Amino acid sequence: MSTLDPSPLGLHRVREPQGVLPQAATRLDPRPEIWPDEVRIDVETLNLDAASYRQLAEKHHGDGNAVRAEVLDIVATRGKMQNPVTGSGGMLVGTVAEVGPQSPLGLAVGDRVATLVSLSLTPLGLTDGLERWDGLSEQVPARGHAILFGRSIAAVLPDDLDPRLALMVMDVCGAPALVARVVRSRVKDQAPQEGTDPSRRGPTVCVLGGAGKSGSLSLAAARDAGAGRLIGVVPHEAEAATLRASGLADEVVVADARAPLGLSEAVRAAGGPADVTVVCVDVPGCEQPAILATADGGTVVFFSMATSFAAAALGAEGLAADVTMLVGNGYVPGHAAYALDLVRRVPAVRELFEARRG
Amino acid sequence: MSTLDPSPLGLHRVREPQGVLPQAATRLDPRPEIWPDEVRIDVETLNLDAASYRQLAEKHHGDGNAVRAEVLDIVATRGKMQNPVTGSGGMLVGTVAEVGPQSPLGLAVGDRVATLVSLSLTPLGLTDGLERWDGLSEQVPARGHAILFGRSIAAVLPDDLDPRLALMVMDVCGAPALVARVVRSRVKDQAPQEGTDPSRRGPTVCVLGGAGKSGSLSLAAARDAGAGRLIGVVPHEAEAATLRASGLADEVVVADARAPLGLSEAVRAAGGPADVTVVCVDVPGCEQPAILATADGGTVVFFSMATSFAAAALGAEGLAADVTMLVGNGYVPGHAAYALDLVRRVPAVRELFEARRG
Repeated sequence: MSTLDPSPLGLHRVREPQGVLPQAATRLDPRPEIWPDEVRIDVETLNLDAASYRQLAEKHHGDGNAVRAEVLDIVATRGKMQNPVTGSGGMLVGTVAEVGPQSPLGLAVGDRVATLVSLSLTPLGLTDGLERWDGLSEQVPARGHAILFGRSIAAVLPDDLDPRLALMVMDVCGAPALVARVVRSRVKDQAPQEGTDPSRRGPTVCVLGGAGKSGSLSLAAARDAGAGRLIGVVPHEAEAATLRASGLADEVVVADARAPLGLSEAVRAAGGPADVTVVCVDVPGCEQPAILATADGGTVVFFSMATSFAAAALGAEGLAADVTMLVGNGYVPGHAAYALDLVRRVPAVRELFEARRG
Repeated sequence: MSTLDPSPLGLHRVREPQGVLPQAATRLDPRPEIWPDEVRIDVETLNLDAASYRQLAEKHHGDGNAVRAEVLDIVATRGKMQNPVTGSGGMLVGTVAEVGPQSPLGLAVGDRVATLVSLSLTPLGLTDGLERWDGLSEQVPARGHAILFGRSIAAVLPDDLDPRLALMVMDVCGAPALVARVVRSRVKDQAPQEGTDPSRRGPTVCVLGGAGKSGSLSLAAARDAGAGRLIGVVPHEAEAATLRASGLADEVVVADARAPLGLSEAVRAAGGPADVTVVCVDVPGCEQPAILATADGGTVVFFSMATSFAAAALGAEGLAADVTMLVGNGYVPGHAAYALDLVRRVPAVRELFEARRG
């Protein structure tokens, strides 16, 4: 162990360039010996993120051996699994092997955990040459070790859920936690309206991409937090049928989330505009439509990584729209436990996830 | 006047392509006859936005005649002044020539106004060939007409301020209005702390780029809204001296807003972390540093057009930072009047603006 002071952000593990955070580093120190506030994980599976795996598979024309060789090379060179082109990583599953005496994460040796911070900032060493992986999927069986810093996030896998289901849920768990917080805050601020239809008492919430993973969890979270009318927007009739059958939304609307007028008119016809609009569709161009579907004084929460900051900022100004726009932070304290709890309590969410798992 | 139903968003003025909003249109209908909810302005000056003018000047190697010819061509082709490369426009000053009977904007014939929606969505016709413009600056003396829709924003120029000063203020007036709203909402939520130093009772606010136009207005707005300690961050000693002399901030810090540790340590030493961090510096890479300079449960407001949505979203997650991140909406009701009022009430802000005007 070096004498360098440990940093909860992992700065002591940054080798190149000096002074940047682990995510921005080109090379981390992946040695297995831990600093007093760190945790070492015995790795079981890496889950490469979809954008990263797609880039690698396309570059090597689907040649699994070449993909595997490049992943091994990246980890050996960088000390972490960060795709140099996409900049993204993924997450991993493993077992806690050692806990430093000053670790604040509350983990114990033997806990089976998923890391909820990106692989793009997690020190990683591999020892099995990824021999059990054919390079043909994002799920990588692996042996080796990974390091968690003082300020990392890891969640113990629950005993009562299939680990693959739990992983899918944890992957998008920031969305329901933030939606619940936004809806709760509006419910608190909103004076109760006596004599109105109970379903109209809470804020109206519209989720674009309501049948997807983060979308269905967001609908369940909004209901849980006291929302009134729930509107789910989906791109075609097949998804509409699924979402209708689930009962997660009060109104299901088929509309193109990129069409400014089409979307806002469809949402209006379903009881909108929305007090809270949640964008869970990963296509560009949804900023102005989402803003137009939202009531004056309302809030738009952008979870889509296809969101353009400028399109949102200038789009609202160009429409003279007084809406609060939130960048969907993937971290809210307790987010994983809350999302897993929703999956347990709301069978319809679990069914949607299990259908997607195929 | 056509029989097409007017839309407050100006959709009836979109010629190509069909179904998009005026900002996304390649061609608008700029005819001077107005629909019942529209207003026609006699144009006096166009203010091209900085990014657009720079692109034109560089393309034509500073040849003013060529720049003028291209601006004329853009307006003739598109029916609006939207730079096809940058996508941006600017704003204009003029006099109200006609007000439709259903216009909700509250303007009267003869009012001298500045438009606060972008030229990139404003129907525009020019009649003087821009003969009084040498093509060598962003300020374009012009004759012609422009159209405001039902849902446009225009502000009457105040009698008591130099129009050039008023325009500079209006150009960034979204920032102080939103900062004041965010700070007020925290002051309301925060229980009064008896017996503490009064200056520490309100939230601590840190403004990155505190000596700039939107930055100095944001500092003044935060003070006005009840902030406690105000920290202004600037990139070098010359700006620090200016900001210190102004008295707008309680603490002035020289730091690189792109350096994660440097910034957060400097802000901490000045009394941080901040409850509210306002990003007003137009350089990329300030997302994680701003997040690290903000307290848990705090808010980051991004006004910089150099903000990356993904860097903010993934950056907060990677730091396990429980911060609320706002996209700086350029529109808040009453924003122009509020910013002008700050300039009148806070002489230090006015002096900073007048020094910049040079």
